Amino acid sequence: MNSKRLLEAITKTEYQIMGHTRRDTQVLQKALNQLDGPLDSDMYGRGKVIEDFQEKMANYLGKESSVFFPSGTMAQQIALRIWCDEKDLKKVAYHPLCHLEIHEEDGLKELHQIEPILLAEKSRVIDLDDVVNMDEDIACLLLELPQREIGGQLPSYETLASISDYCREKGIRLHLDGARLLEILPYYQKTAAEVCALFDSVYVSFYKGIGGVAGAILAGNQAFTEQSKIWKRRHGGDLISLYPYIISADYYFDQRESKMEAYYEEAKELADKFNQCSLISTVPEVPVSNMFHVHLQVAKDRAEQILAEVMEETGLGLASYVRPTSETSCTYEVSIGDRYATIPKELLTSTFDMLDEKLASK
Amino acid sequence: MNSKRLLEAITKTEYQIMGHTRRDTQVLQKALNQLDGPLDSDMYGRGKVIEDFQEKMANYLGKESSVFFPSGTMAQQIALRIWCDEKDLKKVAYHPLCHLEIHEEDGLKELHQIEPILLAEKSRVIDLDDVVNMDEDIACLLLELPQREIGGQLPSYETLASISDYCREKGIRLHLDGARLLEILPYYQKTAAEVCALFDSVYVSFYKGIGGVAGAILAGNQAFTEQSKIWKRRHGGDLISLYPYIISADYYFDQRESKMEAYYEEAKELADKFNQCSLISTVPEVPVSNMFHVHLQVAKDRAEQILAEVMEETGLGLASYVRPTSETSCTYEVSIGDRYATIPKELLTSTFDMLDEKLASK
Repeated sequence: MNSKRLLEAITKTEYQIMGHTRRDTQVLQKALNQLDGPLDSDMYGRGKVIEDFQEKMANYLGKESSVFFPSGTMAQQIALRIWCDEKDLKKVAYHPLCHLEIHEEDGLKELHQIEPILLAEKSRVIDLDDVVNMDEDIACLLLELPQREIGGQLPSYETLASISDYCREKGIRLHLDGARLLEILPYYQKTAAEVCALFDSVYVSFYKGIGGVAGAILAGNQAFTEQSKIWKRRHGGDLISLYPYIISADYYFDQRESKMEAYYEEAKELADKFNQCSLISTVPEVPVSNMFHVHLQVAKDRAEQILAEVMEETGLGLASYVRPTSETSCTYEVSIGDRYATIPKELLTSTFDMLDEKLASK
Repeated sequence: MNSKRLLEAITKTEYQIMGHTRRDTQVLQKALNQLDGPLDSDMYGRGKVIEDFQEKMANYLGKESSVFFPSGTMAQQIALRIWCDEKDLKKVAYHPLCHLEIHEEDGLKELHQIEPILLAEKSRVIDLDDVVNMDEDIACLLLELPQREIGGQLPSYETLASISDYCREKGIRLHLDGARLLEILPYYQKTAAEVCALFDSVYVSFYKGIGGVAGAILAGNQAFTEQSKIWKRRHGGDLISLYPYIISADYYFDQRESKMEAYYEEAKELADKFNQCSLISTVPEVPVSNMFHVHLQVAKDRAEQILAEVMEETGLGLASYVRPTSETSCTYEVSIGDRYATIPKELLTSTFDMLDEKLASK
């Protein structure tokens, strides 16, 4: 097995195409060190540090109010629960590869007894037709922008607006899984508030493109966020102190919000380099955010060997894992952060030349 | 209203009878600063920083395994859920002032549909008779040691052992709400492992006597903790990074575990000073941990005025709030931490003399 070699190879590289920095305690320390002096802890959801950030994010997202949560898993189950209770109907709809469907051990069903209707095929995003042709009545539709598990694909903004109109007309609440909301704004050429205006509630994450330690914001109208605080306590998320996450979220939000355009341009440039390699294609072919999936028409073990060799010889980190999609193909995810811009251009060129060569002669 | 004056007065005092330090960002920074160098983040429950601490705590508590949780609210609901599922019976028993009953917005009922049987009167701890005379079959009994809402009272160790024996005989799981477990060990003259041996599962907190930032440990046998990880994900508690809480929990555990005996002795000394004042008594009269409740036979507003005056004149912080118990009486909680030992003895004496005088002539 070459998976261990691949992981070892990337840890020894000088440069890497993905991410911001190593996920270690310095990420937190850096954020704490820029404080003017000691800051009082939040206390069970109250206090300046949490209230100020919640207000800042509500304004940024164009919503009446927002609540800081330890995780998006908690925030989103709660959002759906509130909309289901409002309609007294425990049914929602989302994509078959929705985070709630595949990464949360069925929390939505086990803790909230909410039944999800899966819309659209796995390989594409939800379209207006999927919503219109739904047989069942639902309380809420969740859209994930971008759809992470298929490379970060997006519907057109017109589709989004038409789904929003339809849901409003039918009394269906629309919730945005905006874990990577900031990352798609350059493609849509919209502000966060403009996108969020299409939705009744929105969740954003602070450790993806923003690169904080952990944590999430859930935003909506005041009545919604007040209810979400009660559920946050029920879930065990109303901690005495969430400030380690809040301070780092705030710090890296300010640092990286304006860099999303650059990450997006770099993702397009990098995807193009991958697409020029033999046996490689990306999904989407042209990225619409800072992320995409690399698909190799090569068996997993051989792909690991080739990627490891290239990384060992060039010192440029390309992948830490690959996942088989068939006997003869595999895939992995790329997300652009601060690191990409530091890579010398010649190194990028020579590395992709080598990758292409090795794949062509595999 | 004098409640604002009381709060203002305590913030201006030089010394305080309660707590360790101000709850601000320095608590976290201090713990981070003692690291030898950057430490890799945990990743969704995996990694050295979380695994090492879980092993350390499992050993300390004498259990097979332990899991770090963001909160005790989450950990305890999950513990009860696992024991209920094991017996396919959604009934548990606990004290009427149990944290789950009064501080969690009914999470246990709303998220887990578990029905609690309330044992014993509010003013006393659960006795063997309460358990034996229960009409209903239950999956799990929760004991909180010490019973915080009534001043931190404890059953005798013999009672505890007899309840444990009875539960084992009857196939009832016994869970320990050990939010303040370390704080009671000096009174019982037992190790944590000796107390925990009486229980099937145990939760401990890291921001009470230990004074960390937040976080909890849930311990039990391997099958139990493995299940708890699934529920932790469902609750939204399986964060990508819990290290801010883990590092501070570990740091302050090492610092304060050996100080619990001193806090206990100091609590007894301090309670005695209160009990010597006119119109004041403590519950328990002689503390059995680092905590007790102060009861004043004075109306809330008058008590606030007197306490504020004493603090303003002496510079020794005695109370930040009082809660009315009737038209003519009120109460507040005292927990001893690092601060108490720093108070000059003469200041303590003169302050309590003044308090006694003011109350006597009220």
